[in-house]
Amino acid sequence: MSKNVTGPEIAELIQLIGKLPGLGPRSARRAALHLLQKKDQLMRPLAKAMTEAAEKIVECSNCGNIDTISPCAICQDERRDKSMICLVETVGDLWALERAEVIKGQYHVLGGTLSPLDGVGPDDLNLTTLVERANGDEISEILIALNATVEGQSTAHYITDLLEDANVKISRLAHGVPVGGELDYLDEGTLAAAIKSRKQL
Amino acid sequence: MSKNVTGPEIAELIQLIGKLPGLGPRSARRAALHLLQKKDQLMRPLAKAMTEAAEKIVECSNCGNIDTISPCAICQDERRDKSMICLVETVGDLWALERAEVIKGQYHVLGGTLSPLDGVGPDDLNLTTLVERANGDEISEILIALNATVEGQSTAHYITDLLEDANVKISRLAHGVPVGGELDYLDEGTLAAAIKSRKQL
Repeated sequence: MSKNVTGPEIAELIQLIGKLPGLGPRSARRAALHLLQKKDQLMRPLAKAMTEAAEKIVECSNCGNIDTISPCAICQDERRDKSMICLVETVGDLWALERAEVIKGQYHVLGGTLSPLDGVGPDDLNLTTLVERANGDEISEILIALNATVEGQSTAHYITDLLEDANVKISRLAHGVPVGGELDYLDEGTLAAAIKSRKQL
Repeated sequence: MSKNVTGPEIAELIQLIGKLPGLGPRSARRAALHLLQKKDQLMRPLAKAMTEAAEKIVECSNCGNIDTISPCAICQDERRDKSMICLVETVGDLWALERAEVIKGQYHVLGGTLSPLDGVGPDDLNLTTLVERANGDEISEILIALNATVEGQSTAHYITDLLEDANVKISRLAHGVPVGGELDYLDEGTLAAAIKSRKQL
């Protein structure tokens, strides 16, 4: 907040809450006030949940997912297809695919995309273990599920080149009209891709 | 989240964050992920700030504001005008007026508005101490700064009646065109009030 009208404790609380994505100064104040008014029902349990999560959460040494165990529950799940890796940019993308229950295989979290302007090079991404996994015996397909942005796509190209020598099939998500989407609202690139990849009925 | 794709610790964290005002399931997941990825820079400090605030914050016995001391810093501030009380609905409203630096006097936080349908009666509001303060020697004016909603205005009427016997001047905020506001976007009630209270130049 621009002006401090509260004591330092509340001001610090508001300032820290304001660092969460999607919360501006006004909503941070509202959230802080809500917490202060629900001290025992919400603020203490949330503080406890955060402290516990901070203690227990580790990054999976195999795929880069976050979990309380490493390798993570997904990597350890024997019912999953060990021959397929779905490559995603962030843990949030992994969660989205898991909610949709569309990936039978395992994951690999890249941790970002190549972005020379922001100083993000290959060394900053979770690539070494990806190449190791791709060269292992079990993997037969890597599905590149990076965002359909310029950075995502150029990173996908870089990774395709990187995995050239590995004996794996490399695939990417299809482009096309989102299910439920209206043509009028779609950009030309999406429409062109949807027409190019049209399916015969 | 509709489906649990994380361990119980992260699921609980997301669920608790989702109880904050203004955060839906999607933004709660984003916020949780952000916290998990900034464990030491954000999650631990925020947990600490919340635990400390939960320990230290008390409600001011005089005005109902929240602070680490009771009476609160505003009630204890000797430079403030002790003869005027500004009556607000919530601590958030008090903060808004303090940011604007427009109240030289003290405050009284009502803690809500009368709402028979929601079962909120006079006993649920911070009225007893208000009447006590109004009947004290120091107070000469009570400015009712409740929201210009139906509930706020009917509560204002109730309080005006309640304070009839107290020897204090009762005032309310002016209605009119917000500074910077465009007439085209204002409702008829506001326009009518602005015309009725027009000022001669």
